[in-house]
Amino acid sequence: MHFTSERRLDDGVLEREFTLGDIPGILWTPAPGSAPLPLILQSPPPLGLRRTYPRLVARARHSAANGFATATIELPGSGDRPRWPAAEQARADLRRAMDAGEPVTDEIIDALVLPLVDKAVPEWQTALDALLGLPGIGGPVGYSGGVISIGTRLAVVEPRISAAVLFAGSFVPRAIVEEARRVAIPLHVLLQWDDEGNDRRAALDLFDAFGSEEKTLHANMGGHTGVPEYAGEAAAQFFARHLK
Amino acid sequence: MHFTSERRLDDGVLEREFTLGDIPGILWTPAPGSAPLPLILQSPPPLGLRRTYPRLVARARHSAANGFATATIELPGSGDRPRWPAAEQARADLRRAMDAGEPVTDEIIDALVLPLVDKAVPEWQTALDALLGLPGIGGPVGYSGGVISIGTRLAVVEPRISAAVLFAGSFVPRAIVEEARRVAIPLHVLLQWDDEGNDRRAALDLFDAFGSEEKTLHANMGGHTGVPEYAGEAAAQFFARHLK
Repeated sequence: MHFTSERRLDDGVLEREFTLGDIPGILWTPAPGSAPLPLILQSPPPLGLRRTYPRLVARARHSAANGFATATIELPGSGDRPRWPAAEQARADLRRAMDAGEPVTDEIIDALVLPLVDKAVPEWQTALDALLGLPGIGGPVGYSGGVISIGTRLAVVEPRISAAVLFAGSFVPRAIVEEARRVAIPLHVLLQWDDEGNDRRAALDLFDAFGSEEKTLHANMGGHTGVPEYAGEAAAQFFARHLK
Repeated sequence: MHFTSERRLDDGVLEREFTLGDIPGILWTPAPGSAPLPLILQSPPPLGLRRTYPRLVARARHSAANGFATATIELPGSGDRPRWPAAEQARADLRRAMDAGEPVTDEIIDALVLPLVDKAVPEWQTALDALLGLPGIGGPVGYSGGVISIGTRLAVVEPRISAAVLFAGSFVPRAIVEEARRVAIPLHVLLQWDDEGNDRRAALDLFDAFGSEEKTLHANMGGHTGVPEYAGEAAAQFFARHLK
């Protein structure tokens, strides 16, 4: 992990860009106290770090005010990171099916999501190794993110993650629904009820499948990007309950 | 409205029992300030005021700490209030169907719930007339309650109610789902995901039907009476946003 830039935001939060191999990322930390900082891994949506920076920094500042460090890394195939042909093909197949009003098949969903999960999850684990090696950052660790299949797999395979906020707004392969049954950490799942890019029924089935004893679904009105401010506040309270 | 007893709880909340005609009720008020108090109409579950008093007073004290008055009245056919034969018959039919593992028909649900709604809603409106006539209580008014069909009808017919917390834990007649489309106030709906006495699918359909532009569903794990403490806190925050 190499820090490439550093600046202090007006509220005192330290923002540091870094690279982890060839993966760009950003770390935000509040002024360090005597105790090691809990950490939130904030996965960006697959639109890329640069396009979603305003949302990411707003959440990171809010988390910093609650005493948390926040880190994000670019997803495989997003931003300036290289695409891979199979993903491009799956995206084209998805667009074609949706434009034609045809059902999105399991084959398309698997081809779109599973390779992304396979690539992204070990990257987040490597990032976690590096982040927990930094002075002042100690955990516990929460995960918050947009591609719910990545969060689901991470929650199964990464024991250092204690709690997760998941956003039910993307296609979910059947294999991931099966993995969901093995998730045991507390979950806070956000669902936009009228999300145009999301199958509500599938999202509810995934929520039902999670094995966690504590899981909460917060469904709000509006489309994919219309998450109301109070829903963000509720997610912050969930982390405050579980990461301290 | 006649007050029949009055006592001051240890946190300074004034608890007054009253009768409204032959309906018993309780009013809790914090120490009055200069502004008139907002009011929460807290409907008890159909188990009766006496059995549910500990839950009711705990919520009322919490609301008082947020600056709200809380009032409750006994539901028709609950506590010491007279039963009516058709409701007894419907309850017997329901038990028989459930014991036999048979589906609970629309006829049973209608016979069980619709007369209760027809009787209860005008009583809550009469109570509201009396409560808003008391010195120091001015609104805005929120409704919070257990029989979701009563809350739905009230939200449609009573323009003085500004926001409602509804608990999806009882059978809902199809006619009420239709009425739900005409609800326009902000709603906060609680659903216990594994509620043994509740049809989850029907609850989600009802949530979908509500016409409100702002509606939020909070689903939590556990059975009918297992609502976690943080879910109560979230409902209190909903009222704090809407009744001030």
